[in-house]
Amino acid sequence: MFRKVACVGGGLIGQGWAITFLIRGLHVSLYDADSKRSADSMNQIEARLRFLSERGWIPVRRVREALKKIVVEESLKEAVQGADYVQESVFEDLRLKRKVFREVERYASGDAVLASSSSSLTATSIQKGMAHPERCVVAHPWNPPYLIPLVEIVPGRETSRETVERTRRFMRSLGKEPIILRKEAPGHVANRLQAALLREALNIVDKGIASVLDVDRAVTHGPGLRWAVAGPFLTLHLAGGEGGLRRAIEHLGPSYERRWRTLARWTHVPEKAVEKAASSIEKHVKSTFMKEAEEQRDQRLIRLLKTLQPSQSR
Amino acid sequence: MFRKVACVGGGLIGQGWAITFLIRGLHVSLYDADSKRSADSMNQIEARLRFLSERGWIPVRRVREALKKIVVEESLKEAVQGADYVQESVFEDLRLKRKVFREVERYASGDAVLASSSSSLTATSIQKGMAHPERCVVAHPWNPPYLIPLVEIVPGRETSRETVERTRRFMRSLGKEPIILRKEAPGHVANRLQAALLREALNIVDKGIASVLDVDRAVTHGPGLRWAVAGPFLTLHLAGGEGGLRRAIEHLGPSYERRWRTLARWTHVPEKAVEKAASSIEKHVKSTFMKEAEEQRDQRLIRLLKTLQPSQSR
Repeated sequence: MFRKVACVGGGLIGQGWAITFLIRGLHVSLYDADSKRSADSMNQIEARLRFLSERGWIPVRRVREALKKIVVEESLKEAVQGADYVQESVFEDLRLKRKVFREVERYASGDAVLASSSSSLTATSIQKGMAHPERCVVAHPWNPPYLIPLVEIVPGRETSRETVERTRRFMRSLGKEPIILRKEAPGHVANRLQAALLREALNIVDKGIASVLDVDRAVTHGPGLRWAVAGPFLTLHLAGGEGGLRRAIEHLGPSYERRWRTLARWTHVPEKAVEKAASSIEKHVKSTFMKEAEEQRDQRLIRLLKTLQPSQSR
Repeated sequence: MFRKVACVGGGLIGQGWAITFLIRGLHVSLYDADSKRSADSMNQIEARLRFLSERGWIPVRRVREALKKIVVEESLKEAVQGADYVQESVFEDLRLKRKVFREVERYASGDAVLASSSSSLTATSIQKGMAHPERCVVAHPWNPPYLIPLVEIVPGRETSRETVERTRRFMRSLGKEPIILRKEAPGHVANRLQAALLREALNIVDKGIASVLDVDRAVTHGPGLRWAVAGPFLTLHLAGGEGGLRRAIEHLGPSYERRWRTLARWTHVPEKAVEKAASSIEKHVKSTFMKEAEEQRDQRLIRLLKTLQPSQSR
């Protein structure tokens, strides 16, 4: 449906989006205010594309095609002109985002969708003061966007239904799994759930209940596996047998309540909890092995995605 | 290392353990105080074993072998006599568990490990009053135990190191992934994390932020996938680039804090939140389709496990 896409912001998320679009054969123009970062982005994008083809996620020829379809522009104007869809991924700063969106809407064609990758700012706050706020929406990806299918689409108060619907259709055409939020909330859905889990993970280590490595193993060999195939509601519904979710909560309620009463309630992270977790994981995953650990994660992710859904190579 | 295992309690978890042991070629005796349930357990175990062979998780001959190796006993004494390892999975009631353990230790051989599947009671409370409390330990599985590798081993105050170590080695010999907790806590590790996530999932639906189906989709297509390949600490450590977890928290801290401030704090579930979630999921997964939904989940789980680890058929 869209042919030319502009990525504004060339950091990790901007690069991830560019790769997502390129894999699907779209033309991408990329812009970053920092010209050094623009150059670096291109290297990273090329390296990532090669990694994906080496691991069998995309065919080799797709890498060559993709690299012909991406252009790094030296001005926002050039990047955005003629684009049907603009994906903004600059630093999470409201003033900066507002400035970028006002500039973007000046140069973008009249019917382009203007989407923000923001994980913590609302479309309502970003679109304030725009000439055409109805075109602005949050489309929040999960990292890395070219592998993890989830996109959270969150309309602001002034976003039009048409913008939401076009964004949803576009994301589906990319093979992504969009969900549409009904209300704005800090962290949308997935990051709220992640925040709840992470707080308790830090607490478990801080309280000395289990080690950092054992918490990670508990998740990857336990609930993580189950959540990859069934969400929390379906899981509970199945746990209840014939009586479903109602029966499950009736039955499990008391033990959930005992857990809830003792979960962490922090609204900011105690320094000593960070210290404990950081010094422990640094011992096990040294910074010299970070690249390897990341590649291992993505390789496992690719193997897993290939079994759960058709690969991108078709 | 162990040859004969006794399963005390023939409900869902007891059956799951029996299947886990049988798949690995062990002799299993099963006992349930309710003789009707004992008979039903056997049917369920047979059906599950057939399902696992139909889906390619175990070879067909293993089903025949397994069915020859399981015996349903009419008394606890007969079930437990001569067993090297006893796995208790009766109803979560402290008085009942204590009674069962005192009876079990009377008939079990002197060096048998006596493990409880409890997800909410501590070994310390269960072992109180036993003649040999040092043999009693919690070994908490995740459902279904024959597929999900995680086992949480939680020693009570009087549990011996030897018991913990023998349980750990036994679990590893079954191809499971044991973690050893350093301290007792309601819900151990994985269920505390699940409780934190589930509370917020209910809250998101209650507040009208997203639908039940979209919350489930957000998890399965987003964080669930990532957690199946990297736990929360490794995820954060990789997100921080060269600076690792410290840098990630420094950088992401403020947005996490905004989320934490607005997360649900219930210590018991508001009825209307249950009503909203239940009526919505009942509309989509009718009780007549529960069996199918469960088989679909397990089928996806098997496909996923086969890519992440060697199958049980070798």
